Amino acid sequence: MLENVDLSKSLSKKEYDDIVGDLKIRVGELQRKAWKMDIPIIIVFEGWHASGMTEIINRFLLSLNPMGLDLYTTGKPCYQEEQKPLLWRFWTKIPPKGKIAIFDRSWYRRIIIEHNSKGKASKDMPECLEGLRYFERQLTDGGYLLIKFFLHVSKEKQEERYNKLKKKEIPLFIVEEEEQEYLHKYDRYLPLIEGILEQTDRISSPWTIVESDDRNFATVKVLAKVIESIESKILEVENEVKMEQNEHDENCLIPNIDFSILENIDLDKSLTRKEYKKEKKKFQKKMIKLQYELFKHRIPLIIVFEGWDASGKGGGIKRVAQKLNPRLYQVTPVGAPSQTELEHHYLWRFYREIPEAGHIGIYDRSWYGRVLVERVEDLCSSQEWKRAYREINEFEEILSDYGTIIIKFWTHIDKEEQLKRFKKRENTPHKQWKITEEDWRNREKWNLYLDAADEMLKKTSTSWVPWTIVESNDKYYSRIKILQTITERIEKELSLRGL
Amino acid sequence: MLENVDLSKSLSKKEYDDIVGDLKIRVGELQRKAWKMDIPIIIVFEGWHASGMTEIINRFLLSLNPMGLDLYTTGKPCYQEEQKPLLWRFWTKIPPKGKIAIFDRSWYRRIIIEHNSKGKASKDMPECLEGLRYFERQLTDGGYLLIKFFLHVSKEKQEERYNKLKKKEIPLFIVEEEEQEYLHKYDRYLPLIEGILEQTDRISSPWTIVESDDRNFATVKVLAKVIESIESKILEVENEVKMEQNEHDENCLIPNIDFSILENIDLDKSLTRKEYKKEKKKFQKKMIKLQYELFKHRIPLIIVFEGWDASGKGGGIKRVAQKLNPRLYQVTPVGAPSQTELEHHYLWRFYREIPEAGHIGIYDRSWYGRVLVERVEDLCSSQEWKRAYREINEFEEILSDYGTIIIKFWTHIDKEEQLKRFKKRENTPHKQWKITEEDWRNREKWNLYLDAADEMLKKTSTSWVPWTIVESNDKYYSRIKILQTITERIEKELSLRGL
Repeated sequence: MLENVDLSKSLSKKEYDDIVGDLKIRVGELQRKAWKMDIPIIIVFEGWHASGMTEIINRFLLSLNPMGLDLYTTGKPCYQEEQKPLLWRFWTKIPPKGKIAIFDRSWYRRIIIEHNSKGKASKDMPECLEGLRYFERQLTDGGYLLIKFFLHVSKEKQEERYNKLKKKEIPLFIVEEEEQEYLHKYDRYLPLIEGILEQTDRISSPWTIVESDDRNFATVKVLAKVIESIESKILEVENEVKMEQNEHDENCLIPNIDFSILENIDLDKSLTRKEYKKEKKKFQKKMIKLQYELFKHRIPLIIVFEGWDASGKGGGIKRVAQKLNPRLYQVTPVGAPSQTELEHHYLWRFYREIPEAGHIGIYDRSWYGRVLVERVEDLCSSQEWKRAYREINEFEEILSDYGTIIIKFWTHIDKEEQLKRFKKRENTPHKQWKITEEDWRNREKWNLYLDAADEMLKKTSTSWVPWTIVESNDKYYSRIKILQTITERIEKELSLRGL
Repeated sequence: MLENVDLSKSLSKKEYDDIVGDLKIRVGELQRKAWKMDIPIIIVFEGWHASGMTEIINRFLLSLNPMGLDLYTTGKPCYQEEQKPLLWRFWTKIPPKGKIAIFDRSWYRRIIIEHNSKGKASKDMPECLEGLRYFERQLTDGGYLLIKFFLHVSKEKQEERYNKLKKKEIPLFIVEEEEQEYLHKYDRYLPLIEGILEQTDRISSPWTIVESDDRNFATVKVLAKVIESIESKILEVENEVKMEQNEHDENCLIPNIDFSILENIDLDKSLTRKEYKKEKKKFQKKMIKLQYELFKHRIPLIIVFEGWDASGKGGGIKRVAQKLNPRLYQVTPVGAPSQTELEHHYLWRFYREIPEAGHIGIYDRSWYGRVLVERVEDLCSSQEWKRAYREINEFEEILSDYGTIIIKFWTHIDKEEQLKRFKKRENTPHKQWKITEEDWRNREKWNLYLDAADEMLKKTSTSWVPWTIVESNDKYYSRIKILQTITERIEKELSLRGL
């Protein structure tokens, strides 16, 4: 993509002044229009050093209303970012509906810097690029407009600019140590960048190569491309809106499920109080030790609890957490999304809260809400929840690739047991707050939830992150199975990693 | 406060089990009640090493609903936190209305660690404690309930526990290098801590010393104190609600202002286009150099723009930013607060966005909205905006103490000039979006805004952060005065600091 680019393109000051005013006005108009239409926009600037990036970005920036705008400069990751997968820092920065996020260098620069040494790609590069493709596809599937620029300069121009900068009082500042190599090895990096650009040039998120030997030309090209992209996105949204309305008229297709996983669960399993107390003590003691191992080896652990209302998720979580060090675990209850969360991709809130390396994140409900409550209660389109199985698998794959251990529980009870527990809650003064009208309403949709849960268990039980169904009619049995599963899984993972 | 504490207090396992269940239920009830009543709660845990803090916090934690709760562990600041004043990391973590934030070590530990060497307080300790007092008073004034615990153990008990821990497989983990001294010099730190506790023990945010030689006793005392504090806060709020309703019935008192600062401004000052172009070029060139100096010396700069609608704030900002490096400045337009922002102390959103060391934060409107639009439009109580003058001065003092340069502009035009500009906007197609019904409505309240602006200029022009009134009927003159003021101020500050 970089090979045959004509870098001699340029504009005189007069030509530039003649064009740029109108382009800036048009960009401003489109920013306001996209805002009204709730279109979120991400603009990525990548390029060589001395490609004039800061100046071009600043010119572009000043044509926009800063109200709906964030500029992120991507440098070296801070400590907190180093404790999370590479994409975490970018996921947390995606804009809400209608707003624009501009990345002054992005995930691509991080890959180039972190996964290369002397211009040679590291072994996990393909995996890494796969992760980027997931990320970008999930965004564009979710309605984001993604515009990617690579500011290209010739080697000669780069050198010329370096020499000029050297003479100035103000040094080439904010070039971090780790970028020194990228700064000076043009030839070595050219094929590498060429490869990355090719492998990430998709129809829904294409690259635009910007000839940047001349800054006026580059600025105009950036403005023109942004205008073109927003205009065509607006057209697309206007047509999609009509499509969606049509789709909404048809009924959501609930797929046929051939056999039910959940109907074949033996819910009679139980433990005596004595057995329970003994086992609990044993496993909790083990948990203390394992928590320390995870911390020592900087391994993050995620434990997901999904299951019927009153099936004992909270009780299970309490027994897991009881002896742990609270500095290293966090319980995250997942309820209805807030307004801000609704304005972002649905995975955004979960990316934000993943535990850092060495910590434990315990989730009382989770991202699976998309294919459970959101599906059953019609809180998202059928297209959205159907797409979510793949998105969730990819999400968990990315976390696993980073080294995260993920354990998922479905606490299972039958309808009679639930009724018994609901009534007990209603009759116990300090538990009444736990039972609401909504619980009774959900109960009426038992079969719909059963179908949804069954499909979820089938489609998201991957080899790297399997589901564990917990027979929970008996609380003692349920809690011990949870503790046992967690401790065994951690032990297995530690031994697999030779720790 | 620590001297005569009876550390022999203890509870047997049976006594503990008999009491603790009811206390936990009661705490849970009060958490739900405070949530409903929108009371935000901050609970601070400080104490000696080996005071059993993690276990006590975990027991307390598990009695609460994790939904409305955040636990923050305060360790060493990360890079980003080091680039901001000490309190920034705590301001950003205060809970929204109805929620609880628990600090497992807090601003006090940071002061003890950062401002002491070998148990001796550093010279800026009094200033630092003053900052803490501002912080806590602003919170409690803003309706926050602040509960502070110091877990106290005897030197003997501490040593006994160290010895026990040494024998265990699991080391005393998560004790950072910087805490080593605090870990082992009990006698040296005792008077220091005593002094800090005394100086920060206020009626609205008192300390509770928790005798922690026995963990059961300590847990029960923590639970009981939290119950007592929430109960009395609830009573207070119930009575305050009535008071506020009464106050609301009276009309807000607009204070008499003896003389108007703004009426005596000479708005005829102007520049020719030629003078403007020449001066602009000169000062913008200077700005590039000064931005680099600020970056080099890690000095943060805040530039605040307040002023009439259409008085040229945006145009001024554009000329300031035009030649700057966008990686080191950010324009923050301040509009109506979001839902989330409304749920916090009004200064919260501004603390979150202060520029890091070496960066420039440019504000198009600012925290002064409290005493301008919020006052005039009745968006807060008169008590709240009257209190705000002091709060804002304290806020700016804390930033200045940290080294931040703050420059504040009031762009001033007269009523006729505004009318001219409004009409021009209406008649220029690509500027129509800039003029709304609201602008016309604000214009009708010209005199109310004039009074508010006058009072603001008088009450918040401190020696460390003065206001600059910019005569803005002539845009050229206005922009040059802004650029000149900024460059001169930075130069003066650099020379004052010997740079």
